[in-house]
Formats: sequence, C-alpha cells, structure tokens
Amino acid sequence: MATNESVPLRVFSLNCWGLRYISKNREERMVMLGDKLSRENHDIVLLQELWSETDFLYLKKTLSSTHLHSYHFKSGVIGSGLAVFSRYRILDVFFYRFSVNGYPYMIHHGDWFGGKAVGMVQMKINGLMAHVYVTHLHAEYCRERDVYLPHRVVQAWELQQFIRHTSRGADLVIVGGDFNTHPQDLGCRLVRAYTGLRDSYSETDAFDGCEDGLTLIAKNPYISAKELGPFEKGIRIDYILFKGSKCVGVKCESLSITQGSCPGSAIPLSDHEALNAQLLLLPTDPNSQKGEPESSEENTGKLAELVDLLTEARTEVKVGVHGAERQRHRAARTGAMGVALLLLELAMAAVPWLVPGSSAAATQPFPRGSFCLLGALCFCLLLLAALLWLFHSDELKALRSADDHMRLAAASLLEQLRARTPTPTTHAADEDGPANQDAGSTSKED
Amino acid sequence: MATNESVPLRVFSLNCWGLRYISKNREERMVMLGDKLSRENHDIVLLQELWSETDFLYLKKTLSSTHLHSYHFKSGVIGSGLAVFSRYRILDVFFYRFSVNGYPYMIHHGDWFGGKAVGMVQMKINGLMAHVYVTHLHAEYCRERDVYLPHRVVQAWELQQFIRHTSRGADLVIVGGDFNTHPQDLGCRLVRAYTGLRDSYSETDAFDGCEDGLTLIAKNPYISAKELGPFEKGIRIDYILFKGSKCVGVKCESLSITQGSCPGSAIPLSDHEALNAQLLLLPTDPNSQKGEPESSEENTGKLAELVDLLTEARTEVKVGVHGAERQRHRAARTGAMGVALLLLELAMAAVPWLVPGSSAAATQPFPRGSFCLLGALCFCLLLLAALLWLFHSDELKALRSADDHMRLAAASLLEQLRARTPTPTTHAADEDGPANQDAGSTSKED
Repeated sequence: MATNESVPLRVFSLNCWGLRYISKNREERMVMLGDKLSRENHDIVLLQELWSETDFLYLKKTLSSTHLHSYHFKSGVIGSGLAVFSRYRILDVFFYRFSVNGYPYMIHHGDWFGGKAVGMVQMKINGLMAHVYVTHLHAEYCRERDVYLPHRVVQAWELQQFIRHTSRGADLVIVGGDFNTHPQDLGCRLVRAYTGLRDSYSETDAFDGCEDGLTLIAKNPYISAKELGPFEKGIRIDYILFKGSKCVGVKCESLSITQGSCPGSAIPLSDHEALNAQLLLLPTDPNSQKGEPESSEENTGKLAELVDLLTEARTEVKVGVHGAERQRHRAARTGAMGVALLLLELAMAAVPWLVPGSSAAATQPFPRGSFCLLGALCFCLLLLAALLWLFHSDELKALRSADDHMRLAAASLLEQLRARTPTPTTHAADEDGPANQDAGSTSKED
Repeated sequence: MATNESVPLRVFSLNCWGLRYISKNREERMVMLGDKLSRENHDIVLLQELWSETDFLYLKKTLSSTHLHSYHFKSGVIGSGLAVFSRYRILDVFFYRFSVNGYPYMIHHGDWFGGKAVGMVQMKINGLMAHVYVTHLHAEYCRERDVYLPHRVVQAWELQQFIRHTSRGADLVIVGGDFNTHPQDLGCRLVRAYTGLRDSYSETDAFDGCEDGLTLIAKNPYISAKELGPFEKGIRIDYILFKGSKCVGVKCESLSITQGSCPGSAIPLSDHEALNAQLLLLPTDPNSQKGEPESSEENTGKLAELVDLLTEARTEVKVGVHGAERQRHRAARTGAMGVALLLLELAMAAVPWLVPGSSAAATQPFPRGSFCLLGALCFCLLLLAALLWLFHSDELKALRSADDHMRLAAASLLEQLRARTPTPTTHAADEDGPANQDAGSTSKED
C-alpha cells in the first residue's frame, strides 16, 4: 500500500549503439555499461539499440544481483533494440510496433530492419502503479531533406496514443528513449502536448551535463561533425519524461547527462549520452483538492494549441501520403514496363512461327543469349515492381490511417471548443470526451 | 452525466465477406446490408471484411441519417476490413495490428494481405464511457492440420492484451467480431479468461437463431459442406462479448442471429451470419458494495486456470517458433544454393581465361544461352531466399516475443498463487499486480 513518505526513484536511459559488426567497440562498451549500471544501481534502466540478444543476456547476468527483473522487446528482423532492467518486479508488459518505419531498400540506413516500437512495463513502486515506457523513433539522417519526417511524425502520433490509452489507471508514468527529434520538433511537441508528460531536463532542480541538455554531442569521439550539421555543439534527442497522478506528485530533483568519454576510460558508453534522472515521488491524498483548477481560458488555449499541432502534423502526413502514392505509381509503371518487355519478347519469339513456310528453329533471328537475358530482366522487373507495390500500398494505408485518426481528433477538439464558447464556465467539461481529459499538459489522469 | 435509468443498447456484428472481384453478389449484398441497418437502426454496428473503401463510403452515405458517426480502420495492403458505425459520437480511436498474420506466399488464402487487427472506438453512452472493439482473426482453413494455429493463438493473446490495457477506466466494454475460433478453442478461452468479457450467446435471456448459436452454417448458400468439415450443421466463430464495471451492470436481454437467406431475398447478407444483441445497461452507484466479494478459493482457482491456459498457449506458440525456424533454415539453404550456383558459374566463365595460350572468346565451351539462364536463376534464388529469410526472421521475433510475454505472465501468476498459499484470506490481494485485477472473469475494472 502507498505510504505518505516521499520515495526517490532513479531512472537511467541510454541509446547503447549496439549494432553487431557495425558499432565500434561494442563489446568493450557493454562491459563498461554493465559495470556502470551495477555500480550506480538505478531503480529503472531503459535501453535502446540493444539489438543483440547476447548483449542483453550479458547485461542480465551482470545485473543479476542489482536488477532482478528485466525484459527485452523482440520485433522486426533484428529486434526492436528496446530493453528494461528494473529493481522492481515487472508485473505485465505490452508492446506496440509502429505502423511505418522507413524503407527496406534503404539498407544503408537500416531502420526498417529493426522493428521500431514502444514497449511498456508495469511495476509497483512502494504501492504505486508505475507504467514505464521505452521507445526509439526513426533516425533523422538529413535535416534539410528529411524523407523520413512523415514516418517519424506518425510514430510520435502512435507513441502518444499508446501512452495515453495504456496509462489510464497508472499512478506514475515514466517514458525514456531516443525520440530522434529535437525538443521543439513536431514529434516531440505532439507527444508532450497530448500526454501531459513533463520533461526532466526542463523541470530538474539540479543539472549536470552539456549546455542545453545535449545528448548527441560533438565532444563524443563516435560523432562526426557532419552528423550534427549546423548544430555544432550537438543536439538533444534523448529524453526522460514523467508525470504523476491524483495519488502522487513527481518532481525531478536532479538530472545528469554524460559528456562523452567516461572517467577512467578512453571511450564513451555509446555515440549517444546517457541520462540519469533522480525523481522524487510525493504521495498525496487523492481525495484532497490540490491546487487551483484550470480556468476555462487556459483549457481553451490548450485545446486550440492541440488543434494547431494536429494541422501541422496532418500537413506532414499528407506529404508522406503523396510520397507513398508517387512510389506506388513508380512501382506500377515498372511493372507495366516488365509486362511490355515480356510481350515484346513473346512477339519476337513468335516471329519465325508466323512466317509461313520456314523452319522456326532455322530462322530464329535473335541470339539466344540476349533472349534469355531479356526474359530474366522481365522477371526481375516484375518481381521487384510487385514487392515495391505491396510495400508502398501498406505504407499508404498506414499513413492514411494516421491522417484519418488526426482528422477525427481535430473534429473532436473543435467540437469541444465550440461547446465551450457559449458557456465559459468549467462546468461544460463534464460532457466532454477523453481527448479533453488528456488534453491539458498538467491535468492528472485517474 | 450518468443517470440511474436503465439504457437499452443494440449491437450488430457481421463479417461482410466484402472482397472485391472474389466475393459473390458483393454489391447486391451491400445494398441489402445498408437497407437492413438503416431500417433496424442499431446503436453500434461492427463490421469485418469490409475491405473496399467504396463499400464503406456507400454504407456511410446510406446510414448518414441513422448512424452519424463511423470509422474505417486502414491497414495492410488491402485494409483491415474493420469498420464501425455508431449513433453515438466517436470520441477517440486506437488500432493495433497483430504481429503475425499468415504468410504472403499463401496467396490463395490471402489473410496476410489484409492487415488483421483490432480497432477500438470510444464513445459516451448516456454519460457512460464505452470502449467498443471490433476485430478479425486469421481464418482456419483446415482444422486437422491448422498451420495458422500458432499465429491465431498469438493474435488472441495480443487481442486480450490490447483490450485489457486500453479498457482501464471504461464503464462499459463491448467486443464484436469474427474470432475464427470455436467457443472451446484456446484463442477464445484466452480472450475471455483474461479480459473477463461475457459471451452474449451464453448470457442472453432470449435467443433466436440456429441451434448452438452457429454463425457459419450449412444452410447458407455461400457455404460448402467441405468448409465445415466434421461440423455438419455449422460452427460458431463470430461473437459479441461485453462487460460492465463498478458504475454499470450489463445484461443481454436478447440475441438474434440470422439463419442464411434474408426474408424477401434469395441470398443472405454474407457467408457469415449476422449477430444482433440487445444489451441493457443498468447504472449503479459505484460506492455501493455490490454482491459478495470473491472467496480466496475461487480466486485461486481462476489463477490456476489462467496458468493452465498459458501453458497450453505456450505449447502452440512453440510449435510456431519451430515452424518459423525451419522455414528460415530452408531460406538460408536456398540462399546458399544460389551462392554455390553463382560460384560454379563464375568458375565456368573463368575456365578459358585460366587455360594458357588460348583466346578466351574463341574457347568459351559453354553455350551463352544456358550461361545467362543459369545467372538469372541464381539471381532469382538469392532474391527469393533473402525475402523469405527476412520474413521468417520477423515472424520468429514476433512469436518469441509472445512466448517471452506468456512466460512473464505465467511467472507473475505463479507468484500470486505462492503469495496466496500461506495467507488464505482475501487481504493478500491488496499487494497484487494488475494481472490479478484482470484475472477474474467476473471481476469489474474501474
């Protein structure tokens, strides 16, 4: 049962860069990570890009005395890369794989092969039900011409949906991970505005780390200046977010972020920096009225902000829809070309048979080698076109689904705004749907 | 706001068999369905296999005066086929695509091409928050040698997870759809035992329909005797399930299921029969103690039943894992054969260059046609093997993920059972996790 004593909770999050054969010094870094985690003994450890099962099992073994409970989320071809280690018993888990996640033919980027997703674990912390989420969104390879932006926006949309719909009844919500979006980017704003989660960097009482809370920094020897582009010092794309409930208030006492190479070692833990947040849980009486209720104007302002966010998000998703349509058309054209070539070849083969009074074999005017090559080319073209058509049809359905959903959400918000206009008292909220309950960034869910 | 008056709620569910170019009399049946729905004016209509966007838009237009609100869930290559029409405003939606869903190369079965899933819509019915789910699981083509059983079990597992995790806070839960599992089948038992949902057929006060509530019947002219196998009269695979909460009791006043051809028409609505449940919502005071609390023995019995179910489910999933491993090995072997053939061909091509003192072109001993054909064959083999390897790796990860999750759930249940043994009073339940809250088939969620 919950007591009224405040409870400290230490949360660690790191993108481990654990790609087999590709990530530099992987094994050495895993040993360093295991040592650090067992030494620092955080309550909850959220890891991303822990692709290798071997690495997970190594960490599980290393942390067997400090973190009894763990879960590795499996998905996609090479895995989701998401893992949780915890000092508290994991009671239940749930997992949502994002509906879009890059392209299989962009092999050099490789995001598609990892089934990017969000994983949730439930645990009881001093009698409080905590829902803890770990996630990793599609990487941004070129900020100026970011072809993955629609996918990342849809992922952020699905992330907020998953958190919102599965965190009802939670006393405490914690989200950690590599969002691959800057704090002011659309994806990050969508997640925060819709879930009401608070950013440990913005809210911390004490901070230790690089300026502006950067988590991908120029100082890190695995990071090249080219990767950071115009952001010379680095970027902030890794987060620990949190929120409480009527039963418990949460504050961030301190946040520390590593700054490249670890003390006593020539190499850092990863290409990303590790976040370590010290939260303080302050159990409250759920029946006591806490703070001032939000005024109607504040709430209306928040609804209007959500409508604007949705408009922005739908614009991006529409860009994605056009792109997918274009690619599907291209696949269809390639398929048509394959069919045309095949017909041409059949016509060529039929020529000798159509010339009367001649032996077909003797008068075949086309070299057999070219003939076979052409046939093989047709087959490959058709196969490739079919695969691309299938893939982009699926992508199109997923993007349109997100757009449909955003349209419904916008209509729901506008309805609420309309309902508010004639009666500017907070009473009107009673008949509102769940979107309203979830809308406010400081509202607490029960 | 909720009143204390009882509220009737009419729910309709039908697998429409709306596959373009393939389903017989599709357009005629859609007209019949539109007429029926606008005439009978149900509160909530849950449709499956409504694959065509045109059909959805037709129904939307036809029902525009009776069912103002609708949603079509998009997914996969041809869609999820799931749609909801409602007299109540749809406030929010969420969608979960199952992680496994058959095989793309089983084109004649085609389930893979529809992104099978579960969709949720939220609505307020007389001040009560209702979470309404529509779903469709993978078809069963051969009961004796059901290669899709592991996939269907995983889908049922994910379905119960989705319902459990997204229905917290709901006053009322309604699930309708084509489960493609008989009532006593593992999938159906998993969903019911884990969610506590009640079956409208088992619970109804009045029933009108075929014996045993069959929903795929021999009398239906679209159904062949071969499809039904040993079940001569038919099978029951479509369901409307429901449960209430502390705020509202639910009873099923009547359930009617169509029996083949519609009155006044030579053809039926679909190859499946339509379900029409009349529920009665009985709002209660959430603060009043209702009924006897479950005894410790009853609760322990239910936990033990869940453990048995999990053991059974894990056995099926393991069969799936072995199957996927075998297929992946096969793909790897095919790939190796492709590489071997390619090397052989390169060796053949290199022979003339290795023979000293001869002109390469002049002494090439292999016919160029066969050479090109062999090259094309190698390329196709390699491409095919790579695709199959990727697909089955993904399948393997999803199946292993389900197995991991079931293992964790079983451990959690055993822990609860152990905690119960020394203290046989209900008090021990206080410290239990959410699995316990969700475990009982008659326990109400808040």
